[in-house]
Amino acid sequence: MKVFNEHYRTIWLDDSKEQVMAIDQRHLPHKFVVNGYRTVDCLVTAIKDMHVRGAGLIGAAAGYGAYLAMLDAKRKGRISVFREHCKNLISARPTAVNLAWAVNRQVQAVTAAGTLEEKVAAALKTAEGIADEDAEYCRMIGLHGVKIIEGLASRKHGDTVNVLTHCNAGWLAFVDYGSATSPVYAAFEKGIKLHVWVDETRPRNQGAGLTAWELGQHGVPHTVIVDNAGGHLMQHGLVDMVITGADRVTSDGDVANKIGTYLKALAAKDNNVPFYVAFPSSTFDWNMKDGVKEIPIEERNQDEVKYVNGLCDDSMKSVLVTPKGSKAANYGFDVTPARLITGLITERGICKADYKSIKRLFKWEIKK
Amino acid sequence: MKVFNEHYRTIWLDDSKEQVMAIDQRHLPHKFVVNGYRTVDCLVTAIKDMHVRGAGLIGAAAGYGAYLAMLDAKRKGRISVFREHCKNLISARPTAVNLAWAVNRQVQAVTAAGTLEEKVAAALKTAEGIADEDAEYCRMIGLHGVKIIEGLASRKHGDTVNVLTHCNAGWLAFVDYGSATSPVYAAFEKGIKLHVWVDETRPRNQGAGLTAWELGQHGVPHTVIVDNAGGHLMQHGLVDMVITGADRVTSDGDVANKIGTYLKALAAKDNNVPFYVAFPSSTFDWNMKDGVKEIPIEERNQDEVKYVNGLCDDSMKSVLVTPKGSKAANYGFDVTPARLITGLITERGICKADYKSIKRLFKWEIKK
Repeated sequence: MKVFNEHYRTIWLDDSKEQVMAIDQRHLPHKFVVNGYRTVDCLVTAIKDMHVRGAGLIGAAAGYGAYLAMLDAKRKGRISVFREHCKNLISARPTAVNLAWAVNRQVQAVTAAGTLEEKVAAALKTAEGIADEDAEYCRMIGLHGVKIIEGLASRKHGDTVNVLTHCNAGWLAFVDYGSATSPVYAAFEKGIKLHVWVDETRPRNQGAGLTAWELGQHGVPHTVIVDNAGGHLMQHGLVDMVITGADRVTSDGDVANKIGTYLKALAAKDNNVPFYVAFPSSTFDWNMKDGVKEIPIEERNQDEVKYVNGLCDDSMKSVLVTPKGSKAANYGFDVTPARLITGLITERGICKADYKSIKRLFKWEIKK
Repeated sequence: MKVFNEHYRTIWLDDSKEQVMAIDQRHLPHKFVVNGYRTVDCLVTAIKDMHVRGAGLIGAAAGYGAYLAMLDAKRKGRISVFREHCKNLISARPTAVNLAWAVNRQVQAVTAAGTLEEKVAAALKTAEGIADEDAEYCRMIGLHGVKIIEGLASRKHGDTVNVLTHCNAGWLAFVDYGSATSPVYAAFEKGIKLHVWVDETRPRNQGAGLTAWELGQHGVPHTVIVDNAGGHLMQHGLVDMVITGADRVTSDGDVANKIGTYLKALAAKDNNVPFYVAFPSSTFDWNMKDGVKEIPIEERNQDEVKYVNGLCDDSMKSVLVTPKGSKAANYGFDVTPARLITGLITERGICKADYKSIKRLFKWEIKK
């Protein structure tokens, strides 16, 4: 999407095809920094230290990382170099499913190719393929999801459609378009009048910092709110639909997403506001049914709650908001039960959040 | 309650009876500062700039302020000085109902008294009366509310009772005990094993800054969480009850309280967690029935959302968490419909959140 009126992806290869370029998201929303990564080690650091984050983008970064690994292997004349690098890549963020998936896809492609030269070509093609596929799936999510927004706009006779979103399921979390934001961008491009309520999304403020920034850069009208505000807005008819992303979706349609998503789904249900979840189908976990019971919820460092990062006097500072001696708990995600979800928006289309409807769209993926 | 193992109220007169002492809450939780206020103007500033805040405490501050006003009037030999000061006091925070109520009570007492000397004595008695009454009502809320916690403790066979609270309805918002915290302190004094989940309560973080501090000082086990976390905790049986305070309660039992309270009430309902609201009966607005429709919701400055205050390098700093160019909206309160509330805890006792039950406790106050 657009940054300073130019089109960007979150990650790409430079013209030399020897350097991976990526937006360093640690500096957003206050500074727009693009880094170049010439070695696998640098890219591992980028994944570990969250220069890049978000399921889709991590997958793409891993794909490009494996390509850099193959370049290095060719340079050194030993395929074992590639395998070493791949191990390091996978261990950069052990819980990121897309990371291992992308690296394994690269290992298969490289193994199937012949000479070192051919292996490099295969790795390049696969890396670009992973990134293109991510962008394309997100674009498809937009094409399906925009119909819902068009329907709302026509029911409102052209009045502004108000969309609420939580966390960052925007293009910054993928290669382009995003999941939850893709229908929004598609509607914006069609000239539909819309406005996005952006939950700041404590503790890491990905809404305030990333979603607000990318919407602003693309020119989409938006307003940042605290996570507490959504219920009040819905009670007063100020939200026409909610769209969030997902970190994991069970075969019964339960959705694990950023902590606080469940509270917004409850408020949407209580006020008859449609609640949609948008994600590429790789987010399905076909081995799970009951999300609340089965999905493990990551507990993160308490300092993410106790301290808040932001800009102060032109540099990033971290301020303590609790008593020094008070403990904090930091659960990363919660689970929104399928009964609260109006529909799931995927690259294949929209379906209800129940096993039967999901199966109709994804019959080949579900093994009985 | 206790600060550094000594008992404190939030506001009191010093031994000379010529100076009002109050905890300056702007420095909490990082620094404990007690200020002395010798003039009405200083106390007006304290109310305006929120050295003191919270309905009960503002009422008590206004009472003491009117006493200082009367002292000054006696010094100058003119009762008109008292009236001038009272006008200034009332305009310090125009929307604070308790402020005008306390000043008017003082005007009545002073008017009824004879000589300037007698008027001073009347103003002193009234100021102490307002503060004592506030503390006593809060103590009574604790005595009633603790029965609920005792019931939970016995059902859990002595296992820790987990209470969740939102914002600061603690003793810092009153003269002593607090409203939502009073049953908690009472249970703690009785030796019941309990633990409090403290919502940080964005945007002003009164939970993280004030509630966590006062619980910590009194020795009550607690953990700070982001406002997004409560639903997840309730889904996993980690919350036994919710208690919040209230800013306004209608005769039908709808409750206006800090933004985000409604979301916690929805989660409590969805998980069969009892949801109580504790407040002195002066919080009832007998002229209103339907809270969502009738209670006006204050919109505050967007910078409270865009910036977060906290401690950095031993001084208070303010950090920007949104893009500079993004707008923010800042609604101060939301309304929790009576249907989501298990019970109301007042100084008179506990009742259901409906007109009939409220009327049974407050039959004299309700004019038909």
